[in-house]
Amino acid sequence: MTKPRIRLGMVGGGQDAFIGAVHRIAARIDDQFELVAGALSSTPERALASGLALGLEQARIYSDFEVMAREESEREDGIEAVAIVTPNHLHFPAARAFLQAGIHVICDKPMTATLQEAEALLQLSQQHRALFVLTHTYTGYPMVRQAREMVASGQLGTLRVAQVNYTQDWLTEPLEQSGNKQASWRTDPARSGAGGCIGDIGTHAYQLLSYISGLKTASLCAEMSRFVAGRTLDDNVQVLLRMHGGARATLWASQVAAGCENRLDIRLYGDKGGLEWSQEHPNQLWFTPYGGPAQLLTRGGAGATALSRAECRVPAGHPEGYLEAFASLYRDTAMAIRHYQQTGEVALSALLPGIEDGVEGMRFIDCAVRSGRDGAVWVGLA
Amino acid sequence: MTKPRIRLGMVGGGQDAFIGAVHRIAARIDDQFELVAGALSSTPERALASGLALGLEQARIYSDFEVMAREESEREDGIEAVAIVTPNHLHFPAARAFLQAGIHVICDKPMTATLQEAEALLQLSQQHRALFVLTHTYTGYPMVRQAREMVASGQLGTLRVAQVNYTQDWLTEPLEQSGNKQASWRTDPARSGAGGCIGDIGTHAYQLLSYISGLKTASLCAEMSRFVAGRTLDDNVQVLLRMHGGARATLWASQVAAGCENRLDIRLYGDKGGLEWSQEHPNQLWFTPYGGPAQLLTRGGAGATALSRAECRVPAGHPEGYLEAFASLYRDTAMAIRHYQQTGEVALSALLPGIEDGVEGMRFIDCAVRSGRDGAVWVGLA
Amino acid sequence: MTKPRIRLGMVGGGQDAFIGAVHRIAARIDDQFELVAGALSSTPERALASGLALGLEQARIYSDFEVMAREESEREDGIEAVAIVTPNHLHFPAARAFLQAGIHVICDKPMTATLQEAEALLQLSQQHRALFVLTHTYTGYPMVRQAREMVASGQLGTLRVAQVNYTQDWLTEPLEQSGNKQASWRTDPARSGAGGCIGDIGTHAYQLLSYISGLKTASLCAEMSRFVAGRTLDDNVQVLLRMHGGARATLWASQVAAGCENRLDIRLYGDKGGLEWSQEHPNQLWFTPYGGPAQLLTRGGAGATALSRAECRVPAGHPEGYLEAFASLYRDTAMAIRHYQQTGEVALSALLPGIEDGVEGMRFIDCAVRSGRDGAVWVGLA
Amino acid sequence: MTKPRIRLGMVGGGQDAFIGAVHRIAARIDDQFELVAGALSSTPERALASGLALGLEQARIYSDFEVMAREESEREDGIEAVAIVTPNHLHFPAARAFLQAGIHVICDKPMTATLQEAEALLQLSQQHRALFVLTHTYTGYPMVRQAREMVASGQLGTLRVAQVNYTQDWLTEPLEQSGNKQASWRTDPARSGAGGCIGDIGTHAYQLLSYISGLKTASLCAEMSRFVAGRTLDDNVQVLLRMHGGARATLWASQVAAGCENRLDIRLYGDKGGLEWSQEHPNQLWFTPYGGPAQLLTRGGAGATALSRAECRVPAGHPEGYLEAFASLYRDTAMAIRHYQQTGEVALSALLPGIEDGVEGMRFIDCAVRSGRDGAVWVGLA
Repeated sequence: MTKPRIRLGMVGGGQDAFIGAVHRIAARIDDQFELVAGALSSTPERALASGLALGLEQARIYSDFEVMAREESEREDGIEAVAIVTPNHLHFPAARAFLQAGIHVICDKPMTATLQEAEALLQLSQQHRALFVLTHTYTGYPMVRQAREMVASGQLGTLRVAQVNYTQDWLTEPLEQSGNKQASWRTDPARSGAGGCIGDIGTHAYQLLSYISGLKTASLCAEMSRFVAGRTLDDNVQVLLRMHGGARATLWASQVAAGCENRLDIRLYGDKGGLEWSQEHPNQLWFTPYGGPAQLLTRGGAGATALSRAECRVPAGHPEGYLEAFASLYRDTAMAIRHYQQTGEVALSALLPGIEDGVEGMRFIDCAVRSGRDGAVWVGLA
Repeated sequence: MTKPRIRLGMVGGGQDAFIGAVHRIAARIDDQFELVAGALSSTPERALASGLALGLEQARIYSDFEVMAREESEREDGIEAVAIVTPNHLHFPAARAFLQAGIHVICDKPMTATLQEAEALLQLSQQHRALFVLTHTYTGYPMVRQAREMVASGQLGTLRVAQVNYTQDWLTEPLEQSGNKQASWRTDPARSGAGGCIGDIGTHAYQLLSYISGLKTASLCAEMSRFVAGRTLDDNVQVLLRMHGGARATLWASQVAAGCENRLDIRLYGDKGGLEWSQEHPNQLWFTPYGGPAQLLTRGGAGATALSRAECRVPAGHPEGYLEAFASLYRDTAMAIRHYQQTGEVALSALLPGIEDGVEGMRFIDCAVRSGRDGAVWVGLA
Repeated sequence: MTKPRIRLGMVGGGQDAFIGAVHRIAARIDDQFELVAGALSSTPERALASGLALGLEQARIYSDFEVMAREESEREDGIEAVAIVTPNHLHFPAARAFLQAGIHVICDKPMTATLQEAEALLQLSQQHRALFVLTHTYTGYPMVRQAREMVASGQLGTLRVAQVNYTQDWLTEPLEQSGNKQASWRTDPARSGAGGCIGDIGTHAYQLLSYISGLKTASLCAEMSRFVAGRTLDDNVQVLLRMHGGARATLWASQVAAGCENRLDIRLYGDKGGLEWSQEHPNQLWFTPYGGPAQLLTRGGAGATALSRAECRVPAGHPEGYLEAFASLYRDTAMAIRHYQQTGEVALSALLPGIEDGVEGMRFIDCAVRSGRDGAVWVGLA
Repeated sequence: MTKPRIRLGMVGGGQDAFIGAVHRIAARIDDQFELVAGALSSTPERALASGLALGLEQARIYSDFEVMAREESEREDGIEAVAIVTPNHLHFPAARAFLQAGIHVICDKPMTATLQEAEALLQLSQQHRALFVLTHTYTGYPMVRQAREMVASGQLGTLRVAQVNYTQDWLTEPLEQSGNKQASWRTDPARSGAGGCIGDIGTHAYQLLSYISGLKTASLCAEMSRFVAGRTLDDNVQVLLRMHGGARATLWASQVAAGCENRLDIRLYGDKGGLEWSQEHPNQLWFTPYGGPAQLLTRGGAGATALSRAECRVPAGHPEGYLEAFASLYRDTAMAIRHYQQTGEVALSALLPGIEDGVEGMRFIDCAVRSGRDGAVWVGLA
């Protein structure tokens, strides 16, 4: 018989929040989770209205995530996992509360507001027996996973150089000054942490580079800019990266690139070939073996590997998108939770981003902010 | 409080069937349906195993859809709607059984195996008070709906000429001779009806053309080919179409176009401008106003209309795909069912394909088959 | 030492004519020709002004091509070849005059105004010892030649189905009614012949299909439309084609497809693979071997054959365009002329379109016009 | 009557040299130049063979450019302009010789081997009355010129950020070690100067950025890499750029990016919109006004400005390529020469790159090399 769904809670993601709804759809797609509790807002009335709208029992609608963690952990039918989808500054206390309660955590990036919190969370996670998954959505795309596999299996040879660009335009104008809620917290250091654009999307770009290339950063030099008057956090970041082993990379993240919607593009080159992938056309992966014609590999298509093929819900030519990539993170999380429940082993698939990615992301932000502050000097990632 | 989910049954779609799983995901995405019963196979053991794997109660796992229709209609908590996802020849008897039982029907295309059945179903549907939705998936894409809206609002002027191509390659070789289940029934007149490629994908192309253009076909001339030896149904179809009002179109459907995955492309031109859309890149719509630069309109982007924008689950640049398009049909169906439950009115949104599309599709197949049989002569669609 | 340039004359192509200037640039690119005489207009003043502007000696500026043919053939330094770039109705008498004078002819398409003229020209060319080249420009693109070679060498297997589309928009509005010279003669049966769009661009599409596929047409069914009020020649043509051997094709030519500039696209599929080429991106050729990933072959790049590589003037990644394709026809013509001058053999490279292509093109127009006139019935190409 | 062609000489560009042939075609396309003299090689036999093959009079075939400059300047029919297409280290002495002889110079980039030479040449050019044109080919593309015009006219608003990438793959392997002539001198500091990839293609990228944006560089930070063992010059360069006025840019040039042919791409963003152009598809220019749909502007098409339209030789949809762009530099040079001959004024069109671009390019190389040598530190361009 089919396994019962995993009981899921959510912190943040009340009415008007974009990412909460995305998490809920993603959790439903493969039918492995059931949302049964939530602290969807810290304002009790909003929390209640949002919870009822989602069909939650009133008794399991909270406005305080500490209370939620405690009460849910005491229920026989308490939540087994929680999705944390608040602004960044609440990630740490919320994750701490649930990890301490032995509840698995699925958390948005950047993992915390500071590197110190990230390191504290890492320690905490080692003390408690609960999984921690960081929703770097783009790692859920089958062709991203295939790219990672192709690099690892040597199809590009020794990596030499890479470029990752993540450009958007939604902060081209001072949206935060006219009451836009998303813009408001993302440009506010108190809620976002020390990084603006670099935290919001730069970390995605950085993690994607690490995820596909398998390379570790030795040092970086980051030019942090604020193009919109009155903004205190960066809205454009250009970074030179030196990787251990000698490879070189650049990363550009911008939220003021007029005409760019959610353009996350990566190119990698080794001594045997190259790869290129674009988030806005995620079902395709260009492979350019040196000396041979360029190949357009497609999700589920003739050039798809067994690994990427197994990720697909629908055949080649039937595009999968962002929600399916997100759903794959939930599906993999469900597998890890069930594995834990059967064996007691706390282990994520290597394909699933976890707490180390979170610490690495915070280290990246921290170094970039320090580099930028000092005029774009080289800073070691230690 | 949130509305309870609509109770859904399924006929067909057991283990190994592709489209059943697609329907189930689509039904889940917007959380409006709950699968509670099924005749997932006509073989009792397979029906049982498939049903249990999906978590159905054993009492509501059937192997005979007639029984299912009767028993479910008698239960207080019986299904409110049923998805019919069998091979084509069973669409008619299954749809009939559920319509007669007053259960709303969501049915795969082509609607029936013959035009006669289609017309019978139309009559039947007028006698019984139940909704009938035909899952022409591609109408669920926001940019397809925007294209339809742009044509209707006159942005192309008077339509003159259109081309729709739907090319795949999966029947390039005689797959049906080596036991492939999908290929087997699709190339078998007893299970597919008189049309092969034209029924399987030609109807999608035809419906897409009608849906976007709003044009009605006056007559057609169809060249029906069987390129693979031993095949009795067409695997390639080329059609000239004369539309009422003077517009002209061509339709090409092929399942032997090597290298094509699921390439459904449409181009339309009026005296003021043109549109172009490709299913494999569904978040984009090219608009070419005569005398101005080409515009790349994107789902949720700057050129999106309010209508298409309202269809989106995630922002511009976060691709939605095939499953989201499918889910939109389920979401719209849920709205129509709830509207019926509140008002007693049997009415589909104009955006949702229904029984008339099904009859029109069968008329198209019927005429094309007759045209092709007689050497590609002109046949009126009357 | 370098060979002296071939002495070239031109008929038509005076001031304001587009295609004359194109021929002159094309003739210059590989430095094999020198323009020394011309009947650039039938109006003496215009002929003189145009000739002087091009630096011709006044004595070799003519307004009557019969006179030019006679006088040039009598000069010791007379022209060795002539380019005929007039409106269609003058192709035949001009070509006749020069062939009879033993001067090689480079002629624009369609070759003549009627099929009868074409057949007469064929006969004439067999009586006189002079080369006849028809400037189907698109055959000069290296990747078109590579496509032809790949088909001939069996990389697609047995051809099954093809589609060629040639869409433009410049006749979307009745330009001919407001004095546009190009539009005026192209929509006038007295100067264009019985075909409008089909003669102007349909013949290019048809020849490209024949050139790449090597297939001969058995019969066709052509829907000829005139969408702009007051127009007597077709401005949109849709054709079903049955090829000898069983392959099937469609051809669509339109000059009312708003937003299309010069969009000539072709797709071919055999039982082993497919090819796709687009004139607006001529340095690329998609090759889709059945069961393998799609390959993007590029001019001069890793997947280029020796043949196409030899056609290139600049390396891969440095785009060649329309003028280079045109120049390749002139270069090949120069080779054939020099070969003739050395050996007396009248022979074109198989890569160079000649009088048979011209006759075939006129046969295509003739059949299509007859088919269309009778309501789009099937007509054999005899 | 037509103007007589300008008498052109050439230094370098003998048999097997790629760029010499390109210059000669470019000079022919618009029929403004006639090649009449050359020092095509410094080896007398090769110089003679190459010159004869091009049809030069034996008396005007030289192996010493100093002799050529002297003798040609003394002839009544001596050359009016010279194209210098040697390896970099000879640009300076050759240019000096001809400028001193009062002969106009058309010179390949990078202008000289060192910044000191560049500055010396600048001084020299001010003392002598002769034009100096630097063949930054990509500035000859109509859509590049339109991009420049659109920026200048404020369509992007205030520029904020730009990215220019120029990636090739032809030095992925140590080609210079197996006798490849092009690779050999380009990786040799004695013939290339202090920059490898940065001199060969980095200068093109840098000039393109300056040309379109109109921005001047304040300082840069350059990571210079040598990925192929045994190579002494850079084969990959990543640069952060700070522009006067606050804009920020990155530049990446690589000759080890497997699968890249000649991929020069640029993106620019201001507070009102963005532009994007790719050399491999040069007839297109993306314009993304903030808040509006993306527009695909095409050469000669509906969105082309009068300026770019005037640059075209063939209509929209008939692709122009690299040779046409190059030819436009020659055409503009011819205009400047004729203007000088009529008025005595030494002046280039603002659209034509000249000696200041050359000095700026050498300054860029010099700073980048110094920055890279010191570990990628910031260096002012002063």
